[in-house]
Amino acid sequence: MGEVTIKDNEKISNAVIKRLPRYRRYLLELQKKGVDKISSNEFSALIGYTASQIRQDLNNFGGFGQQGYGYNVTSLVNEISGILGLDKAYKMVIVGCGNLGQAIASYTHYYKQGFEVQSIFEINPRLIGMRINDVEVRSYDELVEFVEENKTDIGIICATKANAQEIADKLSFAGVKGIWNFATVDIEVPEFVVLENVHISDSLYALAYHINRNEKKKQLAAEKKAAEAAKTAEE
Amino acid sequence: MGEVTIKDNEKISNAVIKRLPRYRRYLLELQKKGVDKISSNEFSALIGYTASQIRQDLNNFGGFGQQGYGYNVTSLVNEISGILGLDKAYKMVIVGCGNLGQAIASYTHYYKQGFEVQSIFEINPRLIGMRINDVEVRSYDELVEFVEENKTDIGIICATKANAQEIADKLSFAGVKGIWNFATVDIEVPEFVVLENVHISDSLYALAYHINRNEKKKQLAAEKKAAEAAKTAEE
Repeated sequence: MGEVTIKDNEKISNAVIKRLPRYRRYLLELQKKGVDKISSNEFSALIGYTASQIRQDLNNFGGFGQQGYGYNVTSLVNEISGILGLDKAYKMVIVGCGNLGQAIASYTHYYKQGFEVQSIFEINPRLIGMRINDVEVRSYDELVEFVEENKTDIGIICATKANAQEIADKLSFAGVKGIWNFATVDIEVPEFVVLENVHISDSLYALAYHINRNEKKKQLAAEKKAAEAAKTAEE
Repeated sequence: MGEVTIKDNEKISNAVIKRLPRYRRYLLELQKKGVDKISSNEFSALIGYTASQIRQDLNNFGGFGQQGYGYNVTSLVNEISGILGLDKAYKMVIVGCGNLGQAIASYTHYYKQGFEVQSIFEINPRLIGMRINDVEVRSYDELVEFVEENKTDIGIICATKANAQEIADKLSFAGVKGIWNFATVDIEVPEFVVLENVHISDSLYALAYHINRNEKKKQLAAEKKAAEAAKTAEE
């Protein structure tokens, strides 16, 4: 691995990176079911990408399937996990202890995968001192000092639009490597900090689009049927 | 519009649909700032896609910019909103009143855009009868009847993995047009129901990938610097 992986990673496009967690989820399910190997065609039927897309994506990092054998599920899971950096541990803080902050803190799911929530920071004095899923809620005033002292890797912004940029500034100043932003506003961070914005509504809008398309299709089909019935009646 | 739009929509790829909400967000910000028009180059600098990608995406549905003028911000917002179906109203129910369900219910944000939460459904008797952001929490037993009577368009699953499929079955049976699924499990729905799965962790994994790449780059740069320093010392 080592340098080879680094070189290969350079070429992987952002679009492929966005697909890797999905590949990994399906592979983990296969692993749970005791499946050892899978062909690109079988994988295609399962995950919904074309077999050629799958081969192209996985070839990006040397996950070559063998002709007539397919992919080794466990090797592929390990390789993808390695590329995503999930073989490492990350220390995180959450800023904002509203419902969303609490929901994120409760996703025990993350802990299993090496993402540890160290603390939650909040302005509301009634929440400070509480424990959410065994994680202490601290005063927002202590954020910078805590991140510096505890070498936090990732800051999670679960606050309002109005406060997001200030929080991002504090987190960046204190030395986080990445920010996971749930506030519905685009924020700016220094070059050395990685920013990932989560826009939950985007997928709601995509849902609305597909619902509308379905409705239009149904309507067109109904109109066509009505027109045909009218034509038949005329004849 | 009418048939033209329908025909045009047929051609729009899923990848473009996923980008439209992002275009819309930026255009709404421009509108707020009183900007009337924007060129593809200016838009590119703002949103981070190439100018040619922007022209290609927007040409998909007839959002043609004029040479030497650019795009009319308001027309483009309206056109994108229309394509996404955001000029219509949607009635939604949330199933699961944990932190995530409550967080979604509190996003007043959606209401402004025609997504109305009619009710939240929950098994826990202590929560039933409560009001979250003026929305009543009802017993899960009443879900099917409520959806049928109130002609709910979208069901939002904010429950655990174990219950997600059962909830999806009930929602589909009761007649929703779409399901927005936050449970971290892939569920199956009938053909006439649109499913949008939200995998929040995927973007955390993408963040982990970029953090690692940054760290590797820093490490390589440091090693190179050290090697050069050693070489200089030898000379």
